[in-house]
Amino acid sequence: MSGTADQTAEDKASKNWPPNIQAVFKRMAPASRYLGLEIIDADQAARTVEVAFNAGPELCNMWGGIQGGMVAAMLDDVMSLAVGLDLEWGQISPTLELKVSMLNAARPGRIIGRGRVIKRGKSVGFIEGELLAEDGTLLATGSSTATFVTLKRKEKPAE
Amino acid sequence: MSGTADQTAEDKASKNWPPNIQAVFKRMAPASRYLGLEIIDADQAARTVEVAFNAGPELCNMWGGIQGGMVAAMLDDVMSLAVGLDLEWGQISPTLELKVSMLNAARPGRIIGRGRVIKRGKSVGFIEGELLAEDGTLLATGSSTATFVTLKRKEKPAE
Repeated sequence: MSGTADQTAEDKASKNWPPNIQAVFKRMAPASRYLGLEIIDADQAARTVEVAFNAGPELCNMWGGIQGGMVAAMLDDVMSLAVGLDLEWGQISPTLELKVSMLNAARPGRIIGRGRVIKRGKSVGFIEGELLAEDGTLLATGSSTATFVTLKRKEKPAE
Repeated sequence: MSGTADQTAEDKASKNWPPNIQAVFKRMAPASRYLGLEIIDADQAARTVEVAFNAGPELCNMWGGIQGGMVAAMLDDVMSLAVGLDLEWGQISPTLELKVSMLNAARPGRIIGRGRVIKRGKSVGFIEGELLAEDGTLLATGSSTATFVTLKRKEKPAE
């Protein structure tokens, strides 16, 4: 590990990540790729995740701002990663409920996303998240509830 | 107007739609195009909208289901269309808050979206929405709060 801010994707991929973060490096979900997801850090003990969304014009409304629904999708993505940090291979954590407050207009560019687990129960988890512009402006906050599901063998990840 | 279920896109585009629906036909927002948005009907007096989302694999998670965030984005899109039905050209209705309940897993295919305005105040609107699979299964419900903004001249729609 270089310890610098200039870690390459390969450096990051080599870290001993939890399975759900490894999965992002190995084969990112199409929806996450569209959002421009990039893993910055994950702390399994603290149950926190930091990511960036490299948001392009394809996420925008007719006025060149990021569509509110895509802001919600970014928050769902980072909160899902946080609550999934202690899942094993073959387990998933679908979102049951999602609530988002849009505080400031989000523009294309690099958006920082943070997620943290508030409570991790046996079958349900509660998560909070936030999105920030590069200048630190708080763009949106979110909270969600997720459940934990063990996939049957036939439900393999789609190729 | 043919009055049949087989209306072409041209038939639909020729209808005397409110400005925000016309805008979808003229130049759909990139985010709405990604979601596969298609206008089915809009009733300005009743403040209701019905759309379809022709959802492809690009909206999916690693297990081939539609990512929860994209379900939220669909609900935001249809609710935004409903609350925008009585806006004039140059006015927009950004979402302030969005809440979504994911009742059943959403799969790629044709998803029906319905939005209806619960209250239309002077500066704020309250909206509800739902998504259904083609077999009628209720996939998700949502509610949102939007505000009304008149764009300054320089804030023209992005080309």
